[in-house]
Amino acid sequence: MQTAIMTETVAELLRIDAFVAQLSLHPRRVFPTHHADAELMPLSAGSYLAATLDVLSEELSVGLYREPETMGWVLVQANLSDLAAVGATPVGLVLGVSLGPEWDDARTARLAGGIDDAVRSEGAFILGGDLNDGAATSLCACAIGLLERPLISRHGVRPGDRIYASAPLGLGNAMAAAALTGHRELFPERAFRPRARLRAGRNLRTRAHAMIDTSDGLLAALDQLARVNELCLELDLRAPRLVDERAAAVAVKLGLPDWALLFGEHGEYELVCAADAGAESALPLGAVPLGQARDGYGVAVRLGDAEAIPLDAGRIRNLRATTGGDPAAYISALLGYGTSLGLPGSPRR
Amino acid sequence: MQTAIMTETVAELLRIDAFVAQLSLHPRRVFPTHHADAELMPLSAGSYLAATLDVLSEELSVGLYREPETMGWVLVQANLSDLAAVGATPVGLVLGVSLGPEWDDARTARLAGGIDDAVRSEGAFILGGDLNDGAATSLCACAIGLLERPLISRHGVRPGDRIYASAPLGLGNAMAAAALTGHRELFPERAFRPRARLRAGRNLRTRAHAMIDTSDGLLAALDQLARVNELCLELDLRAPRLVDERAAAVAVKLGLPDWALLFGEHGEYELVCAADAGAESALPLGAVPLGQARDGYGVAVRLGDAEAIPLDAGRIRNLRATTGGDPAAYISALLGYGTSLGLPGSPRR
Repeated sequence: MQTAIMTETVAELLRIDAFVAQLSLHPRRVFPTHHADAELMPLSAGSYLAATLDVLSEELSVGLYREPETMGWVLVQANLSDLAAVGATPVGLVLGVSLGPEWDDARTARLAGGIDDAVRSEGAFILGGDLNDGAATSLCACAIGLLERPLISRHGVRPGDRIYASAPLGLGNAMAAAALTGHRELFPERAFRPRARLRAGRNLRTRAHAMIDTSDGLLAALDQLARVNELCLELDLRAPRLVDERAAAVAVKLGLPDWALLFGEHGEYELVCAADAGAESALPLGAVPLGQARDGYGVAVRLGDAEAIPLDAGRIRNLRATTGGDPAAYISALLGYGTSLGLPGSPRR
Repeated sequence: MQTAIMTETVAELLRIDAFVAQLSLHPRRVFPTHHADAELMPLSAGSYLAATLDVLSEELSVGLYREPETMGWVLVQANLSDLAAVGATPVGLVLGVSLGPEWDDARTARLAGGIDDAVRSEGAFILGGDLNDGAATSLCACAIGLLERPLISRHGVRPGDRIYASAPLGLGNAMAAAALTGHRELFPERAFRPRARLRAGRNLRTRAHAMIDTSDGLLAALDQLARVNELCLELDLRAPRLVDERAAAVAVKLGLPDWALLFGEHGEYELVCAADAGAESALPLGAVPLGQARDGYGVAVRLGDAEAIPLDAGRIRNLRATTGGDPAAYISALLGYGTSLGLPGSPRR
């Protein structure tokens, strides 16, 4: 059970580390870099400020989203999801909207509509922001929230903990796979409306040991928890309700195995947490058991009753860079690596 | 003295209004849109949160800044300057750095260095952020601060108020004019290191009636105060120390009159405030008297003892759009409009 898992360093993490190493970080910042989905600062009298800033940029430059409503929706939900993953209650969002030459008034209005639909959907508000022009479109938002103790971060997983997700997973990768392989009809973009799990996050803040969102997909979330906690996280691919049924249906049509929907890097903004075995009844309704934490390091997957198979999660997280950003090459490399480990190369159905 | 000043609507403001009209703004937001440099929210027990988000995008796409250190510096100072203009004390900045293909590791490190130089210069800190790739570079930051009553905004100017700036003005436009007309040697980019006037802002919050920063140049600041307060702001072009000496020297070499350094839209991140006549001794050392507020509407300039000349500040603020973004056409149109009002067409010296 103590398999040492070799794992590549993740290029994105190294790049962030190099950047952050030059910066004067706030001495009262509660959690170090990579340890929480949002930045936490003590305010006064047991109150904490949570802040997070997400830029929607790669998703736009690779053409993943085409509809302004989707861009606005995801921009808001991605930021609120980071607040959810620390169990914060939103104060509001500040927007930074920089529009390229392709944005006329009608298209800009559709973007604002998508932003506001998401804001209202989660009972949040806009505080203000900046709107201007740029050579290419870049959408960013900063979500600000408040919370009290107990605080939760990505750190705190204990060996023996059970790992749960706030819902079945895979919608983000199903949408991305359909869009980027030229099969948008299998997953209309307007059907991709992930929702930040703010209520679940507040609930889990007091009940779970550690939490992260799946904004970069489940595998990245598990890998990040494994790295921060220096533990092995076992994902049980036999777990019921693991994969969202709509996502699985898309995967069947694309000829992709279920696990690819969990390993790809387009997430669905659900929460993943570690909690005591048996705590399931105290977790929000619908929590999906994913597997468990144990001594060791990295991510492993369980296919059957045999020992879990260790993965090089870093290698998978680096795939977009190592395949040069080509979607077909990415999928081929992902399937190639998975099948080399004994995972199925095609849908079960 | 009650000259009615005709002024164009500012295209940028209309665009923001149309966008914001679709958004669910926070019901407890203290100041309405356009009324303050940062968004203010009550927290608890007399404490207020200030938040602002500025994107550095147009400055990059038009090639105004070339050196990563300048980009990082201005990104930080622009955001802190908005906090200064509401008299807030920074908690810290959250960064959103989206880098185009031209950024290698060395260049990225220079950007981080510029960010950190500015942060340390103002005694601020970084809270965290997002770093990723985009089709074009977009740099944004959200500055978060705290403050208590009395609050200050752009609203509150009274007829008879004197208008002050926190320092002589024009450095931003001198730098931009030199860079965009191909005379960068007249104003080396690394000499453009504006500083957010955080201390002056805190001081002025309790002493002034209204405040704004000059991030878009003096004229835009005065015009915004005039619009929000429905008053006329008179700028006295004879005022001593009005124009920064280094900026004036660049203007002489470029053949530009001083006033063009105050009317152009690249600001210098100083503060402009309205205060009681005679309050000068209570203002921060170095405050530059600019003119006064009176009944009426818009911006007017005083050249001599005759009545002040009303300006169409909206027309000037729209010039970059109406001249298609061409710097030479912009300068020509600005000088043409100014001289049509009787302002000098060339340097005094």
